[in-house]
Amino acid sequence: MRQLYTFFRSSTSYRVRIALSLKGLDWEARYVSLPRMEHKAADYLATNPQGLVPALVEDGQVLTQSLGILEYLDEVYPEPPLLPRAPLERAYVRALALIVSCDIHPLNNVRVLKALKARWGLADAAVDDWYAHWVAEGFRGFEAMLARAGRAASYCLGDRIGLADICLVPQVANARRFNCDLSPYPRLVAIADRAAALPAIARVAPQTQADAF
Amino acid sequence: MRQLYTFFRSSTSYRVRIALSLKGLDWEARYVSLPRMEHKAADYLATNPQGLVPALVEDGQVLTQSLGILEYLDEVYPEPPLLPRAPLERAYVRALALIVSCDIHPLNNVRVLKALKARWGLADAAVDDWYAHWVAEGFRGFEAMLARAGRAASYCLGDRIGLADICLVPQVANARRFNCDLSPYPRLVAIADRAAALPAIARVAPQTQADAF
Repeated sequence: MRQLYTFFRSSTSYRVRIALSLKGLDWEARYVSLPRMEHKAADYLATNPQGLVPALVEDGQVLTQSLGILEYLDEVYPEPPLLPRAPLERAYVRALALIVSCDIHPLNNVRVLKALKARWGLADAAVDDWYAHWVAEGFRGFEAMLARAGRAASYCLGDRIGLADICLVPQVANARRFNCDLSPYPRLVAIADRAAALPAIARVAPQTQADAF
Repeated sequence: MRQLYTFFRSSTSYRVRIALSLKGLDWEARYVSLPRMEHKAADYLATNPQGLVPALVEDGQVLTQSLGILEYLDEVYPEPPLLPRAPLERAYVRALALIVSCDIHPLNNVRVLKALKARWGLADAAVDDWYAHWVAEGFRGFEAMLARAGRAASYCLGDRIGLADICLVPQVANARRFNCDLSPYPRLVAIADRAAALPAIARVAPQTQADAF
């Protein structure tokens, strides 16, 4: 049985839970508490020397970095596919996934917010404004790409859920948790809400997890 | 002929130039000056609504997000491959590429450093220290993964250059530009230096570009 090292509120862990669930793959959860700094403990560093979640262990092999894990899962367990077949469509889906994964999430995850506060004594309101800024920058581009490409229907590419939607759902959930104004992005919000309501995604949402508080 | 929207010092543009060069693909450069804010001008936003470089235009199709572009190029122009064939090896190479692309570069690119200064009036030294912190965090994990996986030889995976090396070269160059201490990371520095010395990479280095200053 595969093991997933996960924290309920980690949006990169959530991405991997969604992909496993969509593909009907079981896993044993290994909970890693970020507030208790368990990701920096020696036993976890022995699994993932980067000290970040998630990590997926299959047959004793440790896989890290959520986007790499999603690509791996799609290669080894191809049904249902997370990426389309045509290279240009794959590039479109990956570009959307990368807007979230490279241009929003890295600037807003908890280690960065903590670093901002610890380094420069910033107040919560200043850090929340930082968070909202990068959400707005990224979502503006995401929404514009959806509008211009004209490829979205129920999901970012037609009516099949995939890699971009998997990255979008946790980011929209987190943006709401930080009270970001999402009204300028009706397309992406509708897609994220539709995806989040799917039973396969709802059952792995942060608040359903055994480590949620 | 394909067009690459590029800025000489942009490390994500540099990644794409390296991949095109390794695959022997020609391109016409369209220079986008970040200091002159040309990436936010209307004509560039008409190409890439995200207002970021690089963008690659092939047959009128606009591709954005450097990692997505690299995957696309590898799918459409498979020789020489940037990724190995075995899924676990692909996951290893992608994880290394993603350490640079998600955990270092997004925190340290010029738009972020400018935002830090503009928002909180931080001095150059404070921002340089921020830069060095995320390089150290990311490179520590990268080096540890190289050491533990035991898969590196001339490059991150054996003796074939690939996706991880392509992301590593620009990040090491930038870390040096910011005077980061790279002595704790002998493996990754040796790989980056070996890769950067290849003629196919040397000829697309930032200082060789027509827009360099």
